[in-house]
Amino acid sequence: MRDAKLSTEELTQALAKLPDWALREDEAAITRSFRFANFRQAFAFMTECALMAEKLDHHPEWFNVYSRVDVTLTTHDSGGITRRDIELATAMNRASSRPD
Amino acid sequence: MRDAKLSTEELTQALAKLPDWALREDEAAITRSFRFANFRQAFAFMTECALMAEKLDHHPEWFNVYSRVDVTLTTHDSGGITRRDIELATAMNRASSRPD
Repeated sequence: MRDAKLSTEELTQALAKLPDWALREDEAAITRSFRFANFRQAFAFMTECALMAEKLDHHPEWFNVYSRVDVTLTTHDSGGITRRDIELATAMNRASSRPD
Repeated sequence: MRDAKLSTEELTQALAKLPDWALREDEAAITRSFRFANFRQAFAFMTECALMAEKLDHHPEWFNVYSRVDVTLTTHDSGGITRRDIELATAMNRASSRPD
């Protein structure tokens, strides 16, 4: 089943709990840039996120160069941001702040 | 030690053996877009490449969305393409064509 796009109010509430995430200019995606100490830590984070993404059946768009991972979350089928993006963003925050 | 940028002749020879890779317009990087059946296979490929990258101590710039992995290889320290990029490109080709 297709998820509904979040309303402006739902989105505002959700983003208040995700202060490190930014709304993309077209308001159809949220983005965050994660920084780590090195490639090894950046890719360990990506691996954990990949497993979560498979479990949630919702996948990030992401760019990695060395210790940096730039993430964009959107729900293509719904043409915007849904609860799945908020779930994945929250899970990625947790994964990034876990001690090694 | 910093690797030397490949000469135009060396680069031409190297790229002749990497027909799926394209020279970026500024000639300072090579790029290839890999396609897989799904995210799982795309990320399995990325994981294998990440291990190789650590071993070679040379890392890709890459973007992933679902089953697609867009790769850019360059040697920042040398300001262009070196033998390390050719080595990593060759290894990534092998990793992408391995049977599951």
